[in-house]
Formats: sequence, C-alpha cells, structure tokens
Amino acid sequence: MVRLPSALEIVLHELRRLPGVGRRAAERLALHLLEAPAEDALALARAIEQLRHEVHACKVCGNFTDAELCSICADERRATGQLCVVEKPSDLWAFEQAEAYRGRYHVLGGTLSPLAGVTADDLSIAALENRIASEQIKEVILATNPSVDGDATAIYLAHRLAALGVKITRIAQGVPLGGHLDYADAGTLKLALEGRRPLD
Amino acid sequence: MVRLPSALEIVLHELRRLPGVGRRAAERLALHLLEAPAEDALALARAIEQLRHEVHACKVCGNFTDAELCSICADERRATGQLCVVEKPSDLWAFEQAEAYRGRYHVLGGTLSPLAGVTADDLSIAALENRIASEQIKEVILATNPSVDGDATAIYLAHRLAALGVKITRIAQGVPLGGHLDYADAGTLKLALEGRRPLD
Repeated sequence: MVRLPSALEIVLHELRRLPGVGRRAAERLALHLLEAPAEDALALARAIEQLRHEVHACKVCGNFTDAELCSICADERRATGQLCVVEKPSDLWAFEQAEAYRGRYHVLGGTLSPLAGVTADDLSIAALENRIASEQIKEVILATNPSVDGDATAIYLAHRLAALGVKITRIAQGVPLGGHLDYADAGTLKLALEGRRPLD
Repeated sequence: MVRLPSALEIVLHELRRLPGVGRRAAERLALHLLEAPAEDALALARAIEQLRHEVHACKVCGNFTDAELCSICADERRATGQLCVVEKPSDLWAFEQAEAYRGRYHVLGGTLSPLAGVTADDLSIAALENRIASEQIKEVILATNPSVDGDATAIYLAHRLAALGVKITRIAQGVPLGGHLDYADAGTLKLALEGRRPLD
C-alpha cells in the first residue's frame, strides 16, 4: 500500500468520526477535498469554524441560534401553553420539517443515563420547571426518543412535573422502537404526535 | 419552517457540495458538527486546512505527497520500465488498494476535453514524454477512465507517444463502460490490467 501524507491520514481520521461515514466514504471525501479547488475545501473548513463560533443554544429553549432567542422562541405567532420536550435540537428539527407541531419546544440536552454519568442536574430540567410556571404551560409533551434512556427520562419527568399541575403527555409509539426521532418520516412523526396519551 | 442561523446555512451549502452528500446527509452532518464537542468539529476544520497547506503534487508523477517525491516515486523497490498513466491521484489509489500493479505511475491531471477547454497543454503530457526518455520506459499503460473523454485521451496519447518507440497498452474493458475507476472493485481492476492490449 501507498504511504499516505500525514495530513491526509488526519483528515481521514476526522472524516470517519462523522455519522454515516465509513472508510470508503472518508477516502472519497478526502480525495475530493484534495482535488477540488483549494478555495472550495478551505471554504468548508471556514464554514465549520464559523458555525462553532456563531451558533449556540437559545437561552430559553436550547435550540440552536446565532441570536439571543432562536427563531421559534422569537416567533410571536407560535402557540403558547404547550411545550414539546425533546432530547436534542435535531429532534426539534425533525418535528419542524414534518410541520407536525406549531407550539414551542424545550431541549433537554440529552437523556438521563446513569451508566454514562448523566443525572437530572445535567439536563435542562430546572429551566423547564421555570418555564412551565412563567409561561403558564398547560401541557408538556414528552418527545424523548423511544429508547430505554428516552423512556426512562420521560417517566422521570412525568413524576417530577406531576406536582406542577400541568398535563403531561408522551408521544405515541408510532415511532419505531429503538429508532431515533430524527430518522423518522413526516407521517410517522405526525401520528406519534396525534396519538399522544397521558402518562400515568 | 424554522429559520436557520446563517452560519448553519453556509455549512449546509458547503457540505452539499461534497460528493455523495445530499440534503438529508448534509443536515445530519451539520447537526453532528453542532452537537459534537467543539474541539471535535474544529479538529475537522483544522485537518482540512492542514491538508490543503501540506499536501501537493509529487514533482515526478503528480500523486499527492507532503514531500518532494511521493512514497511511490521514492520507493526503490517499485518496478521501473513501466508507467501506468491515470487521470487523477484517486485512480492511482484505486490501483494501489487493489494491489494490482507494482510499477510506477504518471498522473495526467485530467482528460482532454475540448468542450471544457482542456487541451493537451493543460495535462502533464510533456512531463510524461520526458519520463519515457529519462527513465527508459518500455511500456506505457493507458489507464484513463473508460469514458468518452478518457478513451479520446488514450487514443491521443497513443498517437503522440508512438514516435518514442515505447510499447503502448490500454487497460482492458473489464471496467464497466461509463463508470469511474475509483468506484471499481479490486477484481475488476486486476482483470482490466491483465487484459490490457496494444492500442492500434
């Protein structure tokens, strides 16, 4: 085998850490980055740096934004009274792309995961409790992933939020068990929202 | 639809320019770059910049290298007397990964393409003629892609190099017509090399 320049080995290593990029795909991407005009490859590098410098979490809901509030929190036409609680911004995007929900969101930042050392204090739960009070929320829709950790987190939240006198629902098991929300198609996401039921 | 931060729109645009990356894949990659630790995302950006700053063409064959000579040209164990002429370094890599060839290479830098304004002067053909003389080459294997432009370039080279008294062969049509060398599997590449025949 041909010995690769070390800068190329490094790029291959970094590309393979991306989701869905295997050995062959990383090679094709790396070769493209070498064979494309330098300004194109460097534009991608700069875009990634700009992304991480400018984009951060919305201070209210945790969605990605380059302003203080994300475009959803800043949109006065969005319905109030409901919060759709998701693990990550990518789950929020999946609902938005399905146009399945017109209310507001709350991003937890993950799930409870005792094995990984993630406790309730590591998630945006206190902020969620504050929003339920200050925004006069009537319903909290628990839209964590239908996984062991996502279900456990939903059950934990249902217990913890019960005292606040808010209706707590869980999206229906229309989403395939063991799957991930941001892979689901629009129809599945709509069914999951429509089929939500009180968590007891 | 949610309005995206402009830095995110830019990253999505740049990611979609990569080969094999569609809208959905670009979104998943962009979200990963946002949700991953910042050092991981920035490591990829820096790796791309380092790649374009350190890696350049081998001054003999045109393969990618971070030194003056690429690892193949610098390897004294590689057979001399034969040159495998390819369009791009990615084609060279495909042969190397198939372990189908133990000689040396020459990268043209593309194909003749009158419509795109690529003439013989834009390709590394004068350097190829010099190498045939100075390296006492006995055989030139034309391994341009089995495409209209690749075939035309092979025929052009066969005519132009005929006066140099070197044996000129073309890889066999074991590679699927209209395909690209760097997608071919190892077996196909080996068959194509073994089945090469004089171009008349």
